[in-house]
Amino acid sequence: MALVPAADPVVAEVDMGSDTQSVRATVVQASTVFYDTPATLDKAERLIADAATYGAQLVVFPEAFIGGYPRGSNFGVAIGSRSAKGKEEFRKYHASAIDVPGPEVERLAGMAGQYMGKHRKLMPTALERVIWGFGDGSTIPVFETPIGKLGSLICWENRMPLLRTAMYGKGVEIYCAPTADARETWQSSMTHIALEGGCFVLSANQFCRRNDYPPPPDYVFGNREEELPPDSVVCSGGSVIISPSGAVLAGPNYEAEALISADLDFGEIVRAKFDFDVVGHYARPDVLSLTVKDHPLVPVSFASNIKAEGPKKLL
Amino acid sequence: MALVPAADPVVAEVDMGSDTQSVRATVVQASTVFYDTPATLDKAERLIADAATYGAQLVVFPEAFIGGYPRGSNFGVAIGSRSAKGKEEFRKYHASAIDVPGPEVERLAGMAGQYMGKHRKLMPTALERVIWGFGDGSTIPVFETPIGKLGSLICWENRMPLLRTAMYGKGVEIYCAPTADARETWQSSMTHIALEGGCFVLSANQFCRRNDYPPPPDYVFGNREEELPPDSVVCSGGSVIISPSGAVLAGPNYEAEALISADLDFGEIVRAKFDFDVVGHYARPDVLSLTVKDHPLVPVSFASNIKAEGPKKLL
Amino acid sequence: MALVPAADPVVAEVDMGSDTQSVRATVVQASTVFYDTPATLDKAERLIADAATYGAQLVVFPEAFIGGYPRGSNFGVAIGSRSAKGKEEFRKYHASAIDVPGPEVERLAGMAGQYMGKHRKLMPTALERVIWGFGDGSTIPVFETPIGKLGSLICWENRMPLLRTAMYGKGVEIYCAPTADARETWQSSMTHIALEGGCFVLSANQFCRRNDYPPPPDYVFGNREEELPPDSVVCSGGSVIISPSGAVLAGPNYEAEALISADLDFGEIVRAKFDFDVVGHYARPDVLSLTVKDHPLVPVSFASNIKAEGPKKLL
Amino acid sequence: MALVPAADPVVAEVDMGSDTQSVRATVVQASTVFYDTPATLDKAERLIADAATYGAQLVVFPEAFIGGYPRGSNFGVAIGSRSAKGKEEFRKYHASAIDVPGPEVERLAGMAGQYMGKHRKLMPTALERVIWGFGDGSTIPVFETPIGKLGSLICWENRMPLLRTAMYGKGVEIYCAPTADARETWQSSMTHIALEGGCFVLSANQFCRRNDYPPPPDYVFGNREEELPPDSVVCSGGSVIISPSGAVLAGPNYEAEALISADLDFGEIVRAKFDFDVVGHYARPDVLSLTVKDHPLVPVSFASNIKAEGPKKLL
Amino acid sequence: MALVPAADPVVAEVDMGSDTQSVRATVVQASTVFYDTPATLDKAERLIADAATYGAQLVVFPEAFIGGYPRGSNFGVAIGSRSAKGKEEFRKYHASAIDVPGPEVERLAGMAGQYMGKHRKLMPTALERVIWGFGDGSTIPVFETPIGKLGSLICWENRMPLLRTAMYGKGVEIYCAPTADARETWQSSMTHIALEGGCFVLSANQFCRRNDYPPPPDYVFGNREEELPPDSVVCSGGSVIISPSGAVLAGPNYEAEALISADLDFGEIVRAKFDFDVVGHYARPDVLSLTVKDHPLVPVSFASNIKAEGPKKLL
Amino acid sequence: MALVPAADPVVAEVDMGSDTQSVRATVVQASTVFYDTPATLDKAERLIADAATYGAQLVVFPEAFIGGYPRGSNFGVAIGSRSAKGKEEFRKYHASAIDVPGPEVERLAGMAGQYMGKHRKLMPTALERVIWGFGDGSTIPVFETPIGKLGSLICWENRMPLLRTAMYGKGVEIYCAPTADARETWQSSMTHIALEGGCFVLSANQFCRRNDYPPPPDYVFGNREEELPPDSVVCSGGSVIISPSGAVLAGPNYEAEALISADLDFGEIVRAKFDFDVVGHYARPDVLSLTVKDHPLVPVSFASNIKAEGPKKLL
Repeated sequence: MALVPAADPVVAEVDMGSDTQSVRATVVQASTVFYDTPATLDKAERLIADAATYGAQLVVFPEAFIGGYPRGSNFGVAIGSRSAKGKEEFRKYHASAIDVPGPEVERLAGMAGQYMGKHRKLMPTALERVIWGFGDGSTIPVFETPIGKLGSLICWENRMPLLRTAMYGKGVEIYCAPTADARETWQSSMTHIALEGGCFVLSANQFCRRNDYPPPPDYVFGNREEELPPDSVVCSGGSVIISPSGAVLAGPNYEAEALISADLDFGEIVRAKFDFDVVGHYARPDVLSLTVKDHPLVPVSFASNIKAEGPKKLL
Repeated sequence: MALVPAADPVVAEVDMGSDTQSVRATVVQASTVFYDTPATLDKAERLIADAATYGAQLVVFPEAFIGGYPRGSNFGVAIGSRSAKGKEEFRKYHASAIDVPGPEVERLAGMAGQYMGKHRKLMPTALERVIWGFGDGSTIPVFETPIGKLGSLICWENRMPLLRTAMYGKGVEIYCAPTADARETWQSSMTHIALEGGCFVLSANQFCRRNDYPPPPDYVFGNREEELPPDSVVCSGGSVIISPSGAVLAGPNYEAEALISADLDFGEIVRAKFDFDVVGHYARPDVLSLTVKDHPLVPVSFASNIKAEGPKKLL
Repeated sequence: MALVPAADPVVAEVDMGSDTQSVRATVVQASTVFYDTPATLDKAERLIADAATYGAQLVVFPEAFIGGYPRGSNFGVAIGSRSAKGKEEFRKYHASAIDVPGPEVERLAGMAGQYMGKHRKLMPTALERVIWGFGDGSTIPVFETPIGKLGSLICWENRMPLLRTAMYGKGVEIYCAPTADARETWQSSMTHIALEGGCFVLSANQFCRRNDYPPPPDYVFGNREEELPPDSVVCSGGSVIISPSGAVLAGPNYEAEALISADLDFGEIVRAKFDFDVVGHYARPDVLSLTVKDHPLVPVSFASNIKAEGPKKLL
Repeated sequence: MALVPAADPVVAEVDMGSDTQSVRATVVQASTVFYDTPATLDKAERLIADAATYGAQLVVFPEAFIGGYPRGSNFGVAIGSRSAKGKEEFRKYHASAIDVPGPEVERLAGMAGQYMGKHRKLMPTALERVIWGFGDGSTIPVFETPIGKLGSLICWENRMPLLRTAMYGKGVEIYCAPTADARETWQSSMTHIALEGGCFVLSANQFCRRNDYPPPPDYVFGNREEELPPDSVVCSGGSVIISPSGAVLAGPNYEAEALISADLDFGEIVRAKFDFDVVGHYARPDVLSLTVKDHPLVPVSFASNIKAEGPKKLL
Repeated sequence: MALVPAADPVVAEVDMGSDTQSVRATVVQASTVFYDTPATLDKAERLIADAATYGAQLVVFPEAFIGGYPRGSNFGVAIGSRSAKGKEEFRKYHASAIDVPGPEVERLAGMAGQYMGKHRKLMPTALERVIWGFGDGSTIPVFETPIGKLGSLICWENRMPLLRTAMYGKGVEIYCAPTADARETWQSSMTHIALEGGCFVLSANQFCRRNDYPPPPDYVFGNREEELPPDSVVCSGGSVIISPSGAVLAGPNYEAEALISADLDFGEIVRAKFDFDVVGHYARPDVLSLTVKDHPLVPVSFASNIKAEGPKKLL
Repeated sequence: MALVPAADPVVAEVDMGSDTQSVRATVVQASTVFYDTPATLDKAERLIADAATYGAQLVVFPEAFIGGYPRGSNFGVAIGSRSAKGKEEFRKYHASAIDVPGPEVERLAGMAGQYMGKHRKLMPTALERVIWGFGDGSTIPVFETPIGKLGSLICWENRMPLLRTAMYGKGVEIYCAPTADARETWQSSMTHIALEGGCFVLSANQFCRRNDYPPPPDYVFGNREEELPPDSVVCSGGSVIISPSGAVLAGPNYEAEALISADLDFGEIVRAKFDFDVVGHYARPDVLSLTVKDHPLVPVSFASNIKAEGPKKLL
């Protein structure tokens, strides 16, 4: 997520909030330039600039926008076997990845404000477990900012009730849900989370066509029997902004790349929590208590580091 | 919830499952005979018999079907004040309530099978907190039965992520959600829970018109400025059955009293958990752990009882 | 409650104590400036100053003096329904609330001495459960001060025998009972508690007229059929100071806003406990034992916090 | 306390209850025939018969009616000394005492119904500790009877909040408070207990003149400088019946021996608990829990008994 | 692994040990009857009987022998997508799985001796993460038996140095390594582990041909472009037995299904540890210390269970 | 190890890497000039120069190349006895040793680049414990250099799984394994470590004949019955370079002194870790965690030093 300075003009999709304090937020629905991280950063820069023109104070990008979501690839992996081609594919994918923090993050921070921190996906989904590692409890931040308390869970992490509750426990007000899930049921989850958490939910997904990925044989949509037409939609977006009362403020858009914007009226949070406050008047801590082990999980720790600066993440 | 012996005919609404083992379940969408518990029991008897005719092996009733959901009443309560009329209203409402277990439960069990246990709402919603007490962790059962593992949370308990997780931890397969919430957003929560829990979700709500309640001045829809027409709908139902993959199997029905039925194909649970298993492969117990204090919470315990049979619930 | 430096003149109502060590205490019977927290703080400042002029070493304010007791409102809530107007009413009420500790508390502490701590109501009454959360055992302090051991329970918490016993167990000598209950039976409870606890009881209630609240339609006394005359009394006070032997030292006053003062002769505590010492010679710990779980109850706790500073209250 | 069969006529003092189920109860305000237990039993018989004539279904006697409350005596005891006369006085007092159960109890039971059990005072007050022993947790019964749940605490036991809570935990509905305290503050405690427990409170005290006790020098009101006139009132009664809402239904009478009667409308219990339910919706068992050790406390127990039939009461 | 009673004849492949105490062990190199668990159990029974004929006291089976190793399948999973066919494939695979313990385990235990416990794979490899969950530290047993200390790690768990060290710390003498890895490099790891751990290493792998799996289209070797000939080898075994000094005692066999047997001379363990004792004289616990958290990791724990029998594994 | 500037010609043994970034590395298989440290340094200089000619960017020497590995000597030590001759032998051996850092290291650094640090063997093997001390956790560095992350363990330290894991935890990419073990099983360990650590493994051993040591009686291969022929091989080398996937890139050479070289394709590391990442996606830090105490272990420390500059290495 990125903070941008407010600017003037307002987009059509913006739902004008009430007279209480509000925040203008934009969700980016756009595709990575696959295997080309510098070009992806250029594109991010343009999108942030566009959003700023609309007055966006917050811009949320889809899951794996930098680095890319290798949709349709199976990286040559089957149970008990893997191919040399798949390994090379992974090497290239790895080469597109960035360090966080690192120079690319600094560039983004230069536009948006400052780098505040990161969240690493706690549990990858399905085949993602073959290409991504596992996060831990030390990177599930909720940032207190001038525009509210921001936090983010990624894709199906949003289905994890204990993890969401950790976010609620930290007081999240603007709950960002970058995703790669464009199915209709995703909308139900987004609405439910807004109601459950009493927070704004901003879900960003990529809108990609086949030709946003390298052409075959460089990049193959692995399990499909025949190659897709270049302009076929391989991820249809569905980015959306939902209020704490479950009202859809903007989106979902399943048509094209787009910036989805809305004004977030913070009075809605109090009105919603009047009804239901998940870690407040509706909690039963005497019966149900969640413990979040939020220290880094490291396989090897060195005594000298522990003393000097705490254990570092070595992955 | 109630178990009934299987019978033959099939209702139109039933979605035929796959060739794997399946359970026919019926959700009752009907109104209490308010202030008349014997008549309500007679009605329950008829509804169970009808469902059995359709072959239902499980029948789920709405929240507070016995005793009634005193919709629209404010029991004469405002902040810092209460009226004698409201107190008398409560006395009458209390007189309609039943003990669980007790003779009325025995009668129902006589039709359905056997009394297995109860769930007491852990946290009542809003004004309910003035007329209902608070449950504890000792009555959130999941029953292992020949037709699967059954459990139930009531109304906005279904918004409590830690409580739902307790149900998932107990392995619930048929998740019953009796409710009094007929709003559209309720459907999102039901779909989300099915996906989150990898379980069937059966939500039962009453369908009531004004004249299902006693006429004024005996019963007043308290905060409304003028009396409602006798046939105006005061609770529009929305009962629904959803599969573990988030597919709507039957309902939602917002039209009338009805029996909503579907065949639950248990293969769907495994297929869904292949994707997402909330307390299985998708859990991160090393980071997130929920403790459920499931002993009875009693304000006064007597040493002699503790030894003989454990503490009793005294409320 | 607030400590003020002693000053000279003595009010007429003061019952001159014995020749043993005594404390001059004042109970404030006054109304909040509703929906106007800064003005309420100004008023508190004036009242503390007046009490100090009388030599008060302790000033006790009524329940919810800061923020206001929203008497007569029903916040648009009936069983199973709530209105948009009620939600907005809650948002405004919430906006008048303060953090404890926080800047407003600092201002009060600036006048009175120092901020020592807080008590959060353990169990709200009736409709209060819709607008206030629930306290826990971690905020039922008794403060040891130069003028004696001070503690406070709020309104109907004073009806909770186990909670009172927790206060007695902490040795409370000056038992403050801010309330919103102006009924005559309240006096019986105050007298009983003084006898039961062998302590001084200081009960403070607001004295409010209809026009201490915003005029309709901004603020509606919800369940009343017709609007009240502006100067009608909606809370008649009844603030009182009672000695450990059950003697009324000052008040009850049902007439107007007032400062109720008395000198508390600490010799009375010993004289009373000669007769009855609830956690002393009259206790039967071999038969009756109360356990107070006085750790914070938190729905989500973070391991890193636990180590660094113990779990924080997140509500 | 004693159960009597219902009869017809109604006394003037009876406050007519509502149309719900009610119980007619009578509180006896009368003096023991001191040092003459057979005569006291005769008097009890007459009083029960009178109450039955009024239709009383329940008759409550004052503290120590059988055996007598040796008011004014100091049994020759001062710190560090006792007199032979005082010892002889105690011997005579002891001779007037009865066994419970025993022949006198059987006679009473013959009139009232059946002997159900006893309560032994847990903690005697002041000089009582010189003539009476201490009860334990095994004799604080609440009896479930056709006219409701009956229990009793004696005199200043009623000031013990944990002991009262034990009674509430057992569900007492008709709370009997035989006493020897005729002070005005006693009324506050009775009212408070009714409100706190949501129960009817029936307090019975003796009305005695000097000449209800043996004349001097047989019986001396020990610490008084001069002998009292024979008809001076030494205990002025104050017996009273109070409803769960704190309303005084009958009494207090400070004038003479009397039967104080009232109809107890059980609907009042539900109406009162709607507001406040001390071990129900107003309990916080997660924070405050009382343990009652209700087994007999015996100084010597014999292993063979423990195994064969459990510990017996040896006192 | 399974213990079988000793019998007489000796196979040709057996390397006769020294004159010290020895154990005859057999490693099974055979294929699952895929999707047919009863037939697989029959086959296991025959194999155990054959091994017993050779005098085997220990029989080690390959990874996933019961249930099957779904080699070559990709379960319809690609990044961001999965197919309905793949889900159904998983359902069928899941249906072939067994509970441990459970009836199938009982049957095996009936032949071998007794069920001692289980090890659940701590970290599945690559695509396995999509079909299998994750074990924890509570199931990495080393069993003390009459024939030595037995333990087992599965497939690439054997590459985990900390996990192996946990086994060494428990004193493993017969280290079983069921696997699905038939590559030559696997032999290096087996030799290294024998040297590192000073233990016997017994590695069992399946030998399978294409037609040990269901024919297409029921079962597809997913990432291969064209279907394999029915008799092509899809897993070539390589089962082997290695001594603590790194000497190959039997195998590896890459030719066919086989029973690989050897006599394990326990004197070899001492001889090897004279050189190198990984948790003995060669450890440097002052510098390097491994902590094994061997409690069960459970996402939800129930207080009542914790007390009664410890938390259960709910996955 | 030593860094040398890149040069041109390529040796025949080099396995041409892929088109990704690669490093040319050379492993020296040569003998010390025993008891003659200056001559050994001259030889080292020649070997480094030769390697540089081949373009080597890294040159790895065998264990104890400077100072010599006193193979075959028993230093006159038997259990409970030692000889004067052995003591003198040790004095001479000690005289050949160098300080690190020191002038000899400076000379080597002059050729290679700069002195970066040292590793002291943590645990000597067998009789080595009589002539060498024990290292500690403060000298197990992994150096970040322009050609990758370099680290080294010596001889059977490579069998220590926790110590290797410390190296992996520091991110070693080029894992150097100087050794004195020329047995075949050593190859298995080297291959295993490459697979386990996902790193290049470079093992350097001396190739020595009898006459590389002083002639008898100056130097005796102590436990042999008869003197060896002068050209008999006493250490046959076996130096080798292995890729992260376990492929042998160069060697092993058991024939003669040699320079073993290979180009290390760093893409291989990513490809290998795609499969298995020992401290990354394959770690289970929640179950298994290694703590490395990497401060110097000193028997005597002086408080003033600790404060002024931290503990120094006193050995």
